This record gives sequence, C-alpha cells and structure tokens, in this order.
Amino acid sequence: MKIAVDAMGGDYAPKVVVDGAIQAKKAYGVDIILVGQKDAIERELVRYKKDSSGIEILDALEVIKMNESAATSVRKKRHSSIVLGIDLLKQKKADGFISAGNTGAVVCAATLSLGLLPGIERPGISILVPTLQGVGFIIDVGANIDAKPIHLLQYAIMADSYLRNILNIDNPRIGLLNIGEEESKGTDFLKQTYQLLENADFNFIGNAEAKDMFSGKCDAVVCDGFVGNISLKVMESAIEVIIGFLRREFKRSFLAKLGLLFIRPSLMRFKKSLDYSEYGGAPLLGIDGVVIIGHGRSDAKAIKNAIRVAKQEVELKVNEKIVDRVRQLKTKYEENK
Amino acid sequence: MKIAVDAMGGDYAPKVVVDGAIQAKKAYGVDIILVGQKDAIERELVRYKKDSSGIEILDALEVIKMNESAATSVRKKRHSSIVLGIDLLKQKKADGFISAGNTGAVVCAATLSLGLLPGIERPGISILVPTLQGVGFIIDVGANIDAKPIHLLQYAIMADSYLRNILNIDNPRIGLLNIGEEESKGTDFLKQTYQLLENADFNFIGNAEAKDMFSGKCDAVVCDGFVGNISLKVMESAIEVIIGFLRREFKRSFLAKLGLLFIRPSLMRFKKSLDYSEYGGAPLLGIDGVVIIGHGRSDAKAIKNAIRVAKQEVELKVNEKIVDRVRQLKTKYEENK
Repeated sequence: MKIAVDAMGGDYAPKVVVDGAIQAKKAYGVDIILVGQKDAIERELVRYKKDSSGIEILDALEVIKMNESAATSVRKKRHSSIVLGIDLLKQKKADGFISAGNTGAVVCAATLSLGLLPGIERPGISILVPTLQGVGFIIDVGANIDAKPIHLLQYAIMADSYLRNILNIDNPRIGLLNIGEEESKGTDFLKQTYQLLENADFNFIGNAEAKDMFSGKCDAVVCDGFVGNISLKVMESAIEVIIGFLRREFKRSFLAKLGLLFIRPSLMRFKKSLDYSEYGGAPLLGIDGVVIIGHGRSDAKAIKNAIRVAKQEVELKVNEKIVDRVRQLKTKYEENK
Repeated sequence: MKIAVDAMGGDYAPKVVVDGAIQAKKAYGVDIILVGQKDAIERELVRYKKDSSGIEILDALEVIKMNESAATSVRKKRHSSIVLGIDLLKQKKADGFISAGNTGAVVCAATLSLGLLPGIERPGISILVPTLQGVGFIIDVGANIDAKPIHLLQYAIMADSYLRNILNIDNPRIGLLNIGEEESKGTDFLKQTYQLLENADFNFIGNAEAKDMFSGKCDAVVCDGFVGNISLKVMESAIEVIIGFLRREFKRSFLAKLGLLFIRPSLMRFKKSLDYSEYGGAPLLGIDGVVIIGHGRSDAKAIKNAIRVAKQEVELKVNEKIVDRVRQLKTKYEENK
C-alpha cells in the first residue's frame, strides 16, 4: 500500500510531516510518497539516512498557502503539493492522500479531480470528538458551508456506514444539530432536513442540541459545514477562555491557583483530544478516493495517525461500504414508494 | 417607575420571581407588577407581609409553557402572563417587562404588540459574556434564526449604540462572526453582510472567528440567531464536558483529582458568568419598549438583576439613542450617496 502525503501542509511542514511519515512507515509498513519541494524534503530526510527506504519524493514546485482562496489556488497552482498529491490518487499511483494544508483547497482539488461517490452530491469533513460516554462523530465541520437538506441526508448515510464499519457500532444513533429538541424547531432548512432524515432507514433519533455533540446522546451529529465549523472552534477556544478566566480567579483563592497547576496537563490533554489530528485527522467522506485532512497545527504524531487512518480506510473499503449503503437505502426507498 | 415581571416564567417560578422582585423593589426603589396566576403569587407573597407594598398583581389565567410553539401560544393564550405583561407596556402602564419564560413567545408577543423601532426590521437578543479582556457583547443569540444581511447591519448599529451609551465604550469595535478572518470567507449571506458593515459608519473591524466571541478582540460580535444560539450553548456545555473529561482523567492522576476539587468553585463561577441572567438578563433590542429576557434557570438574583437592567435601560433612554443613531447613520449614508 502506498500513501501520498502533502509534505508542505501544516504549520510545521515539512519537518513534522517527514518525521510522521518515517514513523508511520515503520509502524504500519506502508510505502510513502512525500509530495512537495524536493530540496526542502531532502534536507529533512537526511536525518533518517538508513530509514528512508520505502519513501519516495514527488517534486512539487508550488505551495498553496493556508489563507489562499481554495478554488483560485487549485486552478492556478497546477504544480502544488495538494494538486499533485490528489493526481496520484487519480492515476492510481497512491491509495490514499493526507494533507494538513489549506482545507478548502484539498476539498476543492479532491472534488474536481476524483469526483464523488455515486449517490453523494457534496463531500463532508467528519471528525471524532471526545464525549462524556466515549467518542462522537460530527459531519460536516467545514467542507460544505452552503448545504442543502439532501446533503445532510447523505452525510447521515455516510455517518451510519462509517460508524457501523469502522467503529463497529450497531445501529448508530444519528441526531440533527438544532436549537431545540422539538421537531418544529429551527430554520426551514432544518425542518426539511428533519423530514428527510425521519423517513430514511437508519436510526435517526431526532434533533440534537449543541450539548449533544459532546454528551454521548447520539453516536453521530449531522450539521451544515458552517455551523459545524463554528461549533468546533467555540469548543476549542473554550479551554483557553476557561484557563484565562481561572487565572483571574487566582486573586480570590490560592487553592484555585494550586488547582489549576494540578489540572492543567489534563486540560491540555482534553484540548488535544478535540484537535482532530489526535484521532488521525478528519476523513473527507463522499470523495471517490481516500483523503484525510489534518489540522494545521499537526505534529509528527498527528501525521502518523492520519496515515494509519488512511491505511484503515483503504483496508476496510470504507468507500465501497458507503456506496453499498447508499444503494441499499435507495432500493428500500423506491420499494416503499 | 414601574416594571412588569412575568411571575410564571422560568424553571423556579413563581417563587424565585417573587423573591427577586421584592429584592429589586428594596434595592432600586422601583414599583413592580407581578403578572401571573394570582393565587400562586399570593402564596409566595405571604412570606413578605410587611414588604409587599409597591408590589401589584395582575392576574393572568394562562401560562405559556417552555416548549410551546411561540406564534401559536401567543395567538391562542391571550390571558397568559407573557401576553398580558407586554400589554402593560403597550398601554403605558409599565415602563419595562421581564420574562424568564418561553423566549420565542416573548419575542413574538413583543414584536406583534409593541412593534419595532423606526429603521429596525427584526429584534435581536443581546447578551454580555465574559472575555479574556473583560466583557463582550453578542447579538443575536436566538430571536431571528432566518436573518438577512440588513438585519445584521441593524444589529451592529444597535450594538454600537448600546456599547457607547450603556457601557461607555468609545468607538466600540464590531466584528462579524465567520469561519475565517479573510473578507472572502463564508457563505454568500456573510459576504453580503460584510459589504454592508464595511460601508457603514461605525468601527467595523472585519470578520471575527469563534474564539473572538471570548477573546476580547472585538467589543461586539454580530451573527444570525441560529449560529449565535448554537455557539452560546456549545460554550455553556463546554464546562460540563470538561468536568466530565477531568473526572475520567482522575484515574491517571491523584493531583488532577485534587486540582479539580480546588478549581471547581471557580469553574462554576465561570459557568454562571456565561448564564446571561448573571448580567441581568438579555435585552431584546429593536423592540419599541424595554423587554428583558431571563434564562430559564434564573434564580432570585437573576430576576433582581434583570429588573436593574430594565430600570437602567429606561433611565438611559436606550431606545431613543438607538433611534438617534439609526437616523444619524442613515443621514450620513444618504449624504455620501
């Protein structure tokens, strides 16, 4: 198996990407193609003289920066690590692609070049988050910020398939993110989505509130990419706000000061567990190919984990299973009509 | 001055509402009209025999429950405490109205009965939240879940006026909640809103990210009511998620266990400071009248604080100042055309 990795993606590239790739190669026995500026990659690889067998380099002259417009950069920078990395999938020269670079550009390049799975109209970024019961699955956290109800139905189907096949959850409970539990709540968009989900043949448990993204009440929460992205970022910033607030509280109490000292490592671990890189990146589901998005702040471990998840997705044939499930539900739906 | 209070609103009504009203009457010298089921109110008032001068009761036979549909309940329950309380404002028998009851019903009754300020097309619920620098202002957190760009412009104008006149902030910095800082980010709705805010004559500092709701980078963040509501609820639930996560961490570390014990009171204080009742409820801005929304979990102190804020809004003529500011900006806008 060969996994292509965007060596230029993320805040600490190419160093941590090279480190993570070497670690993954050893741990999981996969071959790696590092896509990026050859000189820069080679300078990092020098540190691993003996270990760099099974690591190829594909020279990419251009780099798409974090704040560049997705569509424009993908169109103009044909020799960027993101565009060339996705091309490797298209040409069947790699089985999966990982990038911690510009998320919009990865989504755009993957959609344009690889296309979507049959029955899926928009890709969705899915993440695993810690909940009070274990882990929860959220889709979409930022691929599709102008979603239609049918896209959320497709996200739900992909969530259902992913949870059954990868996380081995029987009959996963799927909720729709809304501002209240009652069916009548929310925008027209959400009311229409509710109807679609209710009539579909999976375990839809109704509206989920913001707290249910982390409560464990559902196994998966579906939402449009804008709200999903904002929610995730509010949760991420909560830790900093709370630590900042606790610092001000110190004037009141020495015990509180001591307390923060003791729990700070745990708080940081929680924050890290929100960082989807910890779970090995965020699968971009719906694409006809295995594409994993890493967080911009990915470290070597995050890159290594993302490679593990890509390998798993290939081995467990996630995409085939999504397509099967879409077909199965479609047949049932047509029989019922 | 006379403030009408929905005695039936909130999880602990009418007890805590009566307690809060009595406390506010003493502390701020305002007269109170308790609107609600007379028998139930009198049972609570008995405890304050000597203190209940200056407290009137307006008997309301019906109660709108928390989960009832806003529009339907306001139309059908003409004798509910919310509808009758708003009527007191309309008839100029009270100067302000406070309810910790069904938020949707309060927004609906106030809009229909009192109408909107000139130049304002939708009301917005505004809250103060703790930030790393002090306090921040967010509008809208749930009145208007199908907002148009022009509504967000009007929210920004109301925020600007409120921050100048009530919080004495010079030239308040106003940000637009979005998924990235660049002007090109977000939905078409947000791009249009950005244009409107950029061309208006207040201190618009561009897009704000989720973390900036709490970072102190802006004095006010404007957003549509759906996203604002979800963000607030994610932040509220963060505390519980974090405490839950820390509990699991205890197995790793005795110090962490001890640490949580020490900081738990501080965490709870932080959680309370998010509860907008702490700041005296959430002003429903844009309505031609002073209406304050309390949190469903309001205690007596929250009710008392809400009465203080209502008194302040009346005294400082918040609505007149909003109208002045709208007129001023409109004149400038037309001069520039």
